[in-house]
Amino acid sequence: MNFSILLFDNFETLDVFGPVEVIGRLPQVYPMEFYSQAGGLIRSSQGVRVDTLSLASLEEAGVLFIPGGFGTRTEVNNRALIEAISVLAGPADFVLTVCTGSALLAKTGLLKGRRATSNKLSFDWAAQQDPGVHWQRKARWTRDGKYYTSSGVSAGIDMTLGFIGDTMGLATAEGIAQTIEYIWNRDRDYDPFARL
Amino acid sequence: MNFSILLFDNFETLDVFGPVEVIGRLPQVYPMEFYSQAGGLIRSSQGVRVDTLSLASLEEAGVLFIPGGFGTRTEVNNRALIEAISVLAGPADFVLTVCTGSALLAKTGLLKGRRATSNKLSFDWAAQQDPGVHWQRKARWTRDGKYYTSSGVSAGIDMTLGFIGDTMGLATAEGIAQTIEYIWNRDRDYDPFARL
Repeated sequence: MNFSILLFDNFETLDVFGPVEVIGRLPQVYPMEFYSQAGGLIRSSQGVRVDTLSLASLEEAGVLFIPGGFGTRTEVNNRALIEAISVLAGPADFVLTVCTGSALLAKTGLLKGRRATSNKLSFDWAAQQDPGVHWQRKARWTRDGKYYTSSGVSAGIDMTLGFIGDTMGLATAEGIAQTIEYIWNRDRDYDPFARL
Repeated sequence: MNFSILLFDNFETLDVFGPVEVIGRLPQVYPMEFYSQAGGLIRSSQGVRVDTLSLASLEEAGVLFIPGGFGTRTEVNNRALIEAISVLAGPADFVLTVCTGSALLAKTGLLKGRRATSNKLSFDWAAQQDPGVHWQRKARWTRDGKYYTSSGVSAGIDMTLGFIGDTMGLATAEGIAQTIEYIWNRDRDYDPFARL
């Protein structure tokens, strides 16, 4: 199943590359590719320049992954991008968001009536994108059907390991955490940053 | 002070982008740039294609950062690269390595007589690059003078926060950990993966 990562300028670096490290351990199961609206080099908020393919070349996402970051403040008003997310996320097998990536997904309306979370420092802004979502203020990550959403930045690693645990079994997720020497927070309800 | 990141094909994704997330929070203090031997697009083991400048354009590293990954198995025999690392690391203000990045640094001889660590699953191979290093089998990360070395992959985030704590104060490091919702392992001697 393809793992399709949507990038845009000023995405948050670790939102993407924490999960990529986890998913990249299963290249036969989840081959990954990076996409952006126009393709070419995309620049993260921390100055990483990443090569991407054009979204026009993506027919089926498989798993659609949407990061957060300051860029979401602009992209939430990019109607063509929100439409593209809607078209891809509807039939996708799974949709995973990190941080304010959930704001972009919420803007499509696809999260309405579902549980979701976001970055704790931008929570109110994200929640405004669709008040019909059951926004969870205290959650490391949430799952509602095929939709996974995580809190800020590092929480994406915990969520992605949780996704692997759900789809491939807990032993596989634990094996990856061990290989990357990551102290995995397995409990999606343990959220030490909710008080922020 | 410049923060200069050395990339090569098949570097480990999170070795680089965990630390980049932390350092990227201090763009005025540590402006970052990515370098490789010939410049251009470099591909991580997980398939991320990152744009880099040529090492020839780098006069002073400031902080030199060297990741690990399968690519180090090849690069340890790349005499021109090891020579370039030696020339840059000698006068650098600090040198930080993650995972088997310490094998590349050890190969220059600059770690001789110093404490260092590496990935727990490739430890013996890394240690062979210079048996004169005081290799630490149980350490999340080590500091010896200007040289910081960390264990595998995720340990680089803990080390980089430790580096920020040392150079900018603990409150700055804790503030960054909080902003990126990262549960920081502050104790460089706490290494739950040493038993591997």
